[in-house]
Amino acid sequence: MTTPKIITSLTNDRVKAIRALEMRKVRKETGLFVAEGASLLVTARDNGFVPETLVYQAGTAASGITSGLVTHALNSGAEVLEVSAAVLAKLASKDNPQTLLGVFRQRFADPPIPKKVGNIETWLALEEVRDPGNLGTIIRTADAVGCSGVILVGTTCDPYALESIRATMGSIFAVPIVKMERSAFLGLAKDWRGDVIGTHLDGREDFRAVRYRGPQLIVMGGEGPGLTDDVAAACTKLVKIPMSGRLDSLNLAIATALILYQVRGPQLKL
Amino acid sequence: MTTPKIITSLTNDRVKAIRALEMRKVRKETGLFVAEGASLLVTARDNGFVPETLVYQAGTAASGITSGLVTHALNSGAEVLEVSAAVLAKLASKDNPQTLLGVFRQRFADPPIPKKVGNIETWLALEEVRDPGNLGTIIRTADAVGCSGVILVGTTCDPYALESIRATMGSIFAVPIVKMERSAFLGLAKDWRGDVIGTHLDGREDFRAVRYRGPQLIVMGGEGPGLTDDVAAACTKLVKIPMSGRLDSLNLAIATALILYQVRGPQLKL
Repeated sequence: MTTPKIITSLTNDRVKAIRALEMRKVRKETGLFVAEGASLLVTARDNGFVPETLVYQAGTAASGITSGLVTHALNSGAEVLEVSAAVLAKLASKDNPQTLLGVFRQRFADPPIPKKVGNIETWLALEEVRDPGNLGTIIRTADAVGCSGVILVGTTCDPYALESIRATMGSIFAVPIVKMERSAFLGLAKDWRGDVIGTHLDGREDFRAVRYRGPQLIVMGGEGPGLTDDVAAACTKLVKIPMSGRLDSLNLAIATALILYQVRGPQLKL
Repeated sequence: MTTPKIITSLTNDRVKAIRALEMRKVRKETGLFVAEGASLLVTARDNGFVPETLVYQAGTAASGITSGLVTHALNSGAEVLEVSAAVLAKLASKDNPQTLLGVFRQRFADPPIPKKVGNIETWLALEEVRDPGNLGTIIRTADAVGCSGVILVGTTCDPYALESIRATMGSIFAVPIVKMERSAFLGLAKDWRGDVIGTHLDGREDFRAVRYRGPQLIVMGGEGPGLTDDVAAACTKLVKIPMSGRLDSLNLAIATALILYQVRGPQLKL
């Protein structure tokens, strides 16, 4: 077992490289992302993720959880950096500062193969979702209902943005994330054995009144525009969420959660 | 009918005063708040709100919606400011710039009187909610299910923060907002004629299996800590949302939406 490397300079190259992961471009080039805080890092470890780099504030590794994470990282061959409070303040986000963070390699899973997907599985596809907070919240909810994976269709925001990671509350390490072009996704939807379910203003059925044949593939459109016509046409069930009064839309993460709980309901018990 | 006042100076006192409404302290002292964009301002007008001040970018009032809002504001005796693009850029938020904004007076409604609340009404109470984005999303969802009002219990974030206003998508102008100290709220809960419903880790009943006696009072705890013991003890129904796997919590706005749709379900039709 090696020992942590100590960094106190704000201009250290490693500090600059980690900080640069705030930028989507750099996350894309390196394939890395940052997760902050003990809770996320414990979930990462429990799901078999080893950080490339673990950074912790000097003087905090005596505590149980941080000490365990540092030992795990060192034993796994990760780079471990002990940094001063000033360096950590520069690396960590300002609004909810943490005393440790991990740099991880992004994982994208392969698309599901329709004939291999089990009958009680549910997959969730998101078309052109734009807000990383919404995306992270949706990944968390997909985890809570036991979705097999989340498919990002077309141009979407980055699931590995810090705001998304934080909103997942760790579910980013538990839920397989798949990226697909729209044309490839349309092929998947065509071969899907169960219902392909979309919410749409033109939907004629109340989402609570429909029986969804498994395996289910739920498709949600982006904030604002909703589903594209091509994807809506690929759905076998177009449903609608009833609303009172003047409203005709809900926040995307809210609408997704209502559909997920309805579709996955039979699988969920206290 | 008067005419708009033209402002091009970034250091104009009116510009500085409106900009200061970004600060909670200033919103509290003045009782004012800012709503940005045509969609929010149309909703405000449709709900009988007249801005104290309407600000629009020079050259944009030829378009139908802005022109109508300017005329409505002038006819209602509001201050109307035509500003340069540079001034508007200083006033408006950076991430989603708009060409007009309104300054409105905050409204807080009186608490409901238990014996006057109708049997098919639902009220939603939030204990110590901290995130304005969550709060705004919850107000939007409460509107979508036809809640009679939202009660903020104890120390909460500001419903009139810009992030909250934006997340409400205009529902801030449609849903009565009530503020109560915890002790007063406990008195209200005691006198409530129907079920007082809370979600709690100790809840023994699946939220989908319970019949909720109207009028319903739903109580949600803050992000993280959940309901305080006093408020949990005041509930006549403590329920739980089932989750799969390792998870024991959902995002607060998500959990609230699931409960709202379950409780309000019988009132909602396509």
